[in-house]
Amino acid sequence: MCVIGLGLIGGSLMRAAKAAGRDVFGYNRSVEGVEAARSDGFDVSTDLPATLNRAADLGALVVLAVPMPALPLMLRYVRENAPQCPLTDVTSVKGAVHAEVERAGLLARFVGGHPMTGTAQSGWAAGNAGLFVDAPWVVSVDDHVDPQVWATVMHLALDCGSFVVPARSEEHDAAAATISHLPHLLAEALAATAGEVPLAFALAAGSFRDGTRVAATAPDLVRAMCEANSTQLLPVLDRTLRQLVDARNQLAQHQPVSELVETGHAARIRYENFDRPEIVATVVGQENWRDELAAAGRAGWVIRSALPTRDSRG
Amino acid sequence: MCVIGLGLIGGSLMRAAKAAGRDVFGYNRSVEGVEAARSDGFDVSTDLPATLNRAADLGALVVLAVPMPALPLMLRYVRENAPQCPLTDVTSVKGAVHAEVERAGLLARFVGGHPMTGTAQSGWAAGNAGLFVDAPWVVSVDDHVDPQVWATVMHLALDCGSFVVPARSEEHDAAAATISHLPHLLAEALAATAGEVPLAFALAAGSFRDGTRVAATAPDLVRAMCEANSTQLLPVLDRTLRQLVDARNQLAQHQPVSELVETGHAARIRYENFDRPEIVATVVGQENWRDELAAAGRAGWVIRSALPTRDSRG
Repeated sequence: MCVIGLGLIGGSLMRAAKAAGRDVFGYNRSVEGVEAARSDGFDVSTDLPATLNRAADLGALVVLAVPMPALPLMLRYVRENAPQCPLTDVTSVKGAVHAEVERAGLLARFVGGHPMTGTAQSGWAAGNAGLFVDAPWVVSVDDHVDPQVWATVMHLALDCGSFVVPARSEEHDAAAATISHLPHLLAEALAATAGEVPLAFALAAGSFRDGTRVAATAPDLVRAMCEANSTQLLPVLDRTLRQLVDARNQLAQHQPVSELVETGHAARIRYENFDRPEIVATVVGQENWRDELAAAGRAGWVIRSALPTRDSRG
Repeated sequence: MCVIGLGLIGGSLMRAAKAAGRDVFGYNRSVEGVEAARSDGFDVSTDLPATLNRAADLGALVVLAVPMPALPLMLRYVRENAPQCPLTDVTSVKGAVHAEVERAGLLARFVGGHPMTGTAQSGWAAGNAGLFVDAPWVVSVDDHVDPQVWATVMHLALDCGSFVVPARSEEHDAAAATISHLPHLLAEALAATAGEVPLAFALAAGSFRDGTRVAATAPDLVRAMCEANSTQLLPVLDRTLRQLVDARNQLAQHQPVSELVETGHAARIRYENFDRPEIVATVVGQENWRDELAAAGRAGWVIRSALPTRDSRG
């Protein structure tokens, strides 16, 4: 397989795939990254066309592990040099990537992915082979996806120690908006508000510390994820605002804020008791396999060992 | 000293004060609480007038450790049986307590307190002598407070292992609204929103887990703290809502959300680097001592070893 981009995720992926016994080679734009990876014993290059031609000769899976803004250019190179290779990505916003891949005419061999893991660091040096262990790895089951390519990406995720959450791209993005982008905005607003209140930092304890933890994330990263996913973020932000405005009006009228507090508490308790049953009965490629997996993923089911594949379009 | 109410805070206070070598006795309404405390070797009673008369004979500090709704009745008993004793409390909302104490005609010997600690449990059995160690203990420096009573409460907090944050009641309540009550409402709204989004719990990771942690708090407690402090909670909730609505409108117009993200990040970094210098130069009772301590507390300074006292009104 071929990894394009050797930052935290791409670099960790290379290590994890190699540790799992896979043949893996890659490309990185910066000479520094390539030299660091080479000195760690990896087969990497700064020559993108050569790397992609090699992938094309082997029919290797190409993994795009570059930031969103670099994606259109990378996709042009893929179309020119390796248009028949199975293709996936590891980007946190799936709808926008899908649109770019479609624009590049590469949808037929593409299955989007998102390993839901990371650290505060970045770059080759920050990577490690264990980054994906026990993490959810979303693999898209959009209408177009090919069962063979899908199975290829599923095997990669499982080889890296992740479990697979099958999901449609737009559902992934709505969920990511809710559980990642929205908490970032709330944390920023809480920190910003407290920053203006005398004595607040002096008295701050656990609820403030936890509630603002992700406000320590680099502002550029927060902006990038929120702005790239604004279509999905807006409706959940609006829903949250409506609930807070209702509670605000109840407080102003000396009425109980029971509705928000009880709904929130019940949801948190459901989350704490949320388990992940294993999907075992679906055959990838059978009739309605995509809808079946999307429904299972939506209900919290995951893939922990490879599903069988039938070589036909379902 | 005399502790009225032997729940988590009162019971821990009794243990901590005894461990510090103080003579301590107390009252609890329920026979079960009293029996549990007695079997642990404590001098406690279900007879409130007798307990308060004993405090009056000794001139003992009386600590009110009952929930807010029980306070007016307890204050009536104090006025009848121990009106000259120095009086403090451990309740989380200081303005409302101040008003009740004033209504009971007991302000002259009262200094409000709030040890900022706790656990999810309640009752005598949940208490422990170490609960206050290294926690901020707010001691009110409102205009009326007497230096001798103030010093008495300061000594109690220090004996229990806390450091003292001097603060005016209304500033305490505004800060508590910001760093405790507001984060609870945001956590409830985040959990409630995610509860309606398919796939959200399936993909939830650290930012959601941390951002909703306090939504697991018992709904009655959250309601009680938010509703009792609505006067201070409303303006900070409004400020937070304004920032989120601005960000929402920027996202809707495909504009950057830099202002919220950068302000929030800067505030969180300031919080992470916030330290607590020690107040050493103030003499309790000297001219302007209350304003001086309020200003120091506002700026993050704390008392770690007892300040000297001058026996005169400043």
